[in-house]
Amino acid sequence: MRVAVLGCGTVGAPVVRALCDQRRRDELERAAGATIELVGVAVARHDEARMGVPPELIVGDAVGLITTQAPDVVVELIGGDGVAAEAIDAAIAAGSSVVTANKALLSHRLGDLARRADERGVDLLFEAAVCGAIPVVGVLRTSLAGQRIRRVLGIVNGTTNFILTTMAREGIGYGASLEMAQRLGLAERDPRADVDGDDAAQKAAILASLAFGTDVPSASVAKEGISRITTGDIDAARRMGHVVRLLAVAERTADDELSVRVHPAMVPAAHPLAAIEGATNAVFVDVEGAGPMMLAGAGAGEATASAVLGDLVAAVRHRATSTHTRVRGLDGAARLAAPGDVESAFFLSVEVADRPGVLAAVATVFGAHDVSIRSMEQVGRRDDARLMFLTHTASTRDIEATVDALGCLDVVESTGAVLHVVDSEAT
Amino acid sequence: MRVAVLGCGTVGAPVVRALCDQRRRDELERAAGATIELVGVAVARHDEARMGVPPELIVGDAVGLITTQAPDVVVELIGGDGVAAEAIDAAIAAGSSVVTANKALLSHRLGDLARRADERGVDLLFEAAVCGAIPVVGVLRTSLAGQRIRRVLGIVNGTTNFILTTMAREGIGYGASLEMAQRLGLAERDPRADVDGDDAAQKAAILASLAFGTDVPSASVAKEGISRITTGDIDAARRMGHVVRLLAVAERTADDELSVRVHPAMVPAAHPLAAIEGATNAVFVDVEGAGPMMLAGAGAGEATASAVLGDLVAAVRHRATSTHTRVRGLDGAARLAAPGDVESAFFLSVEVADRPGVLAAVATVFGAHDVSIRSMEQVGRRDDARLMFLTHTASTRDIEATVDALGCLDVVESTGAVLHVVDSEAT
Repeated sequence: MRVAVLGCGTVGAPVVRALCDQRRRDELERAAGATIELVGVAVARHDEARMGVPPELIVGDAVGLITTQAPDVVVELIGGDGVAAEAIDAAIAAGSSVVTANKALLSHRLGDLARRADERGVDLLFEAAVCGAIPVVGVLRTSLAGQRIRRVLGIVNGTTNFILTTMAREGIGYGASLEMAQRLGLAERDPRADVDGDDAAQKAAILASLAFGTDVPSASVAKEGISRITTGDIDAARRMGHVVRLLAVAERTADDELSVRVHPAMVPAAHPLAAIEGATNAVFVDVEGAGPMMLAGAGAGEATASAVLGDLVAAVRHRATSTHTRVRGLDGAARLAAPGDVESAFFLSVEVADRPGVLAAVATVFGAHDVSIRSMEQVGRRDDARLMFLTHTASTRDIEATVDALGCLDVVESTGAVLHVVDSEAT
Repeated sequence: MRVAVLGCGTVGAPVVRALCDQRRRDELERAAGATIELVGVAVARHDEARMGVPPELIVGDAVGLITTQAPDVVVELIGGDGVAAEAIDAAIAAGSSVVTANKALLSHRLGDLARRADERGVDLLFEAAVCGAIPVVGVLRTSLAGQRIRRVLGIVNGTTNFILTTMAREGIGYGASLEMAQRLGLAERDPRADVDGDDAAQKAAILASLAFGTDVPSASVAKEGISRITTGDIDAARRMGHVVRLLAVAERTADDELSVRVHPAMVPAAHPLAAIEGATNAVFVDVEGAGPMMLAGAGAGEATASAVLGDLVAAVRHRATSTHTRVRGLDGAARLAAPGDVESAFFLSVEVADRPGVLAAVATVFGAHDVSIRSMEQVGRRDDARLMFLTHTASTRDIEATVDALGCLDVVESTGAVLHVVDSEAT
């Protein structure tokens, strides 16, 4: 089987090295039940020296490599939706199977690419696009195909999970924790794609599409990042028996709509996701008739290359036996829930003047917006008084209206974080 | 696609009910991309009323159902290796794909059945045989095919995990905890298959075969149950920052041999497996180049039926597209490690006379057997004095010799549990 690799960066280089290493290639061939020949490696800067790659295999033109070589399998590790998108289109058109780790592209073109790969009878495999080595794509595509999924909750971004768990463990603020992540190479110099939730939203779109058999583009994912989370929020969560995590959520609502979103949330300490610390990823799936299950493991680094090689073995094996894996039908017609309709329990904190009658005034606002209070705690006195509320289930729209109205009260100095609270019944 | 179900008990009944329910069957058919027709249900007691199953579908003779109907897929849920084995043999011979939850049969005939299914070009799917709804079979067969696995550690028996975690939480002894499990329906009246480790050993054999691509029969799995674990052992573990779990272990040894075994072990509190409480199952897989990952979820009950239906969908989908899933080659020639050669850190406790010189006498015995002590703690005084040791890595043979020699010392009143200690580096 003739294999071309596009891209030779963080993920591409170890994949190419594995294919050039005799012992490693033997193992892959044994697993695939076919021989594997590397026919070319497309790189952006042609002149760069590539350790261990025979120089005659290196080319600059990714699409040209596909059209001239017509490989059996194209492994796309360039990323983004420029050259990578052209190359994947060319590969499917040429009848090559495709292995990719390109979450940005898949998060807005999964439905289209899956349909065309199916029509052409080739594989489109992308385990490495979501949560590195945790085989969540395979589990949703294959093991859980045919089962009815109620909800997917994921810690899918290692950078933000490292920042949040470091804030909790070290008692330091968001900025200091982000700096630590940057020093350790766990956050980019420009961290926005991670901390604003964009990366998590792309993964949420892919997971939601697979779990619910419908094409959810990442643009439709409501998202909120972690940069406004304070140590005060994390302390409050701890006092209430919770931890704070950035979650990717995909769930059926009570109206049988589909809600897909990314936001910080309070997770009960006893929930399996609360134990996920540092840069680890985890996906919690609640399956009708089977209960909850969780997959956890490294989400990035060498794990990603390992997932690519796993897919490559599958693609070669399928090719050698003239079959391919269908992407679970994405033709389901799920309606997406309007963000305001999404219901949840909420946590919110309000800085107030510490004088008699304040709680009554604040509570009246909750009541006027149909939001029922489950518990309240005051922290601090005088100038530093803060009321923290846990609500019963309420709509996002009603909570937002409550927060707006609270901001207009004289006795309210400011309103702080508003966090979804994961229900402990569903653990 | 024509489907026959053999057995209509705890697992069979909900499977048959799903196939007889219009809405549920629609969903399964959509996922499978083909229609599903139930052509027969084989039951042991023909005369029994089966709610919701059309009576004309019920037959008494499982093998006869296969030979007369030649179904596309045979779902074997009888269990054991009597009629079930005959029926699976007949199904493969007839060219039917097979879905089974029969761990007893697979644990000693997986290699043989997989080879024959491959030769016949049919599926042999058995997700439900190990850990119910946790898709560990699929992950090992598919997602991790082609990757090199270092070690699999599993909590694969919910009954024993319930007993051990209840002993720890409630501070009650083994007998009382077992009784509680029996009252809750989590343990059989005759609990030996669970508490002696036989059930876990069968699952260990299947997991080891899949993870290491070699045929490991359950008879070769070294096993030790939990009935000798005392609250004293659990307290000692807690003081040393550990919990006690019954583990199924499959790992490559330093000599590149394969060790497959079941025994109680001390697990560091920070290890993901330490968080697995009650009847939950979990499998921790350490993959070369991808690090550790863990899958956790319900291991029994309705989860098992759900796993069967997932496999049924896959079998129908493969059949409709004339393909099948190969069982990862089990022809690898791994040498099995002799139990005495297996190396680990160990915990052991020794009841001693409380007088000067005792520790020196005891420590001399450790040294004479090449066992190096990492830490020692004395608990109690006078008649109730007990020394608890954690050792550095030692061979099982040397530990056993140490325990035997300790038993011959005058100052030693008795020796207690000997537990493998899971190394905290590998978490």
